[in-house]
Amino acid sequence: MPHIPLPAGIPGIRGPMNYSPETAGPMNELANVLLRTNAHRPDSTLTEGERELIATYVSSENDCYFCQTIHGAVASHHLGDEDWSLVYSVKSDYQQAAVSGKLKALLTIARSVQKGGKHVTADQIAAARAEGATDRDIHDTVLIAAAFCMFNRYVDGLATTAPVDAPDFYKMRAAGVVANGYAANDPK
Amino acid sequence: MPHIPLPAGIPGIRGPMNYSPETAGPMNELANVLLRTNAHRPDSTLTEGERELIATYVSSENDCYFCQTIHGAVASHHLGDEDWSLVYSVKSDYQQAAVSGKLKALLTIARSVQKGGKHVTADQIAAARAEGATDRDIHDTVLIAAAFCMFNRYVDGLATTAPVDAPDFYKMRAAGVVANGYAANDPK
Repeated sequence: MPHIPLPAGIPGIRGPMNYSPETAGPMNELANVLLRTNAHRPDSTLTEGERELIATYVSSENDCYFCQTIHGAVASHHLGDEDWSLVYSVKSDYQQAAVSGKLKALLTIARSVQKGGKHVTADQIAAARAEGATDRDIHDTVLIAAAFCMFNRYVDGLATTAPVDAPDFYKMRAAGVVANGYAANDPK
Repeated sequence: MPHIPLPAGIPGIRGPMNYSPETAGPMNELANVLLRTNAHRPDSTLTEGERELIATYVSSENDCYFCQTIHGAVASHHLGDEDWSLVYSVKSDYQQAAVSGKLKALLTIARSVQKGGKHVTADQIAAARAEGATDRDIHDTVLIAAAFCMFNRYVDGLATTAPVDAPDFYKMRAAGVVANGYAANDPK
């Protein structure tokens, strides 16, 4: 049961976001800018699917069921990962996953950020650059990882609830996110 | 030295915020809504000074020098804590600090969120309610603590630099924040 009364029937982060639309607005705007488009970032090489994989991995490290499942579903949608096998392999051992060396190096940076900002090392940055990561990719990876340390704590710090063993729920929601973006007051 | 080239002479979080104004916009809007006004939250009992104390405490637990110092300066400005003694006492042992029982109970929740969302317990929530905390206060405490787990990681994950042993710098900046709010592209 959530720690404060939240609108019924609205799972995960969308319960507190409906409770507090004033804060949900900028939080969703941040998610849209960070995860959904490179239009304003010509110096970025990260795809939407890769950005969602970083978000999913950090959410998994933070043990946040709702976030890792919905963002995993969005990543899978972008990447054509119908059975979610790629997403599962990134969460369990990204070094062995079928992703680029660049993304592996960025996931290492994301893992450090998840532990705390000072865990990021110059060697980790150099390794990402050696794999082709740009300054923008490094910036965005750090901020995606940092932002999901916020989203995950918001979801679990209020003890929100979410459907489990319900892949169709998350796949349907993911299709909506891919079409329309993250929105605070989505009625669905 | 920061991990990516950032505009020179702009300390702390404002370096990456100037580098990436698209993400700075919603991040500053979130800070303004969470920290600066109760106009849209009639059910809140937290003052601006108390909100800044929560932000300062979480930043201290995350060992983020820039954030704990600037938000400590803003808290002190609001609370008339000229020599920062109250802020220091909250950071070192808030249970002994000269703050209300309600704020102590909310700082306990914030400390749990800093560790991870699932560290928040029903007993901690009940203790805050017993001291007069409202649902809104609990929501806002969880989100302030979560948001500073983002801000702190953004600042330190990119290895930004900031003035040390420079209280006048932070006091002057705090006065500007109190007057004008948090802004991404403040030229100062």
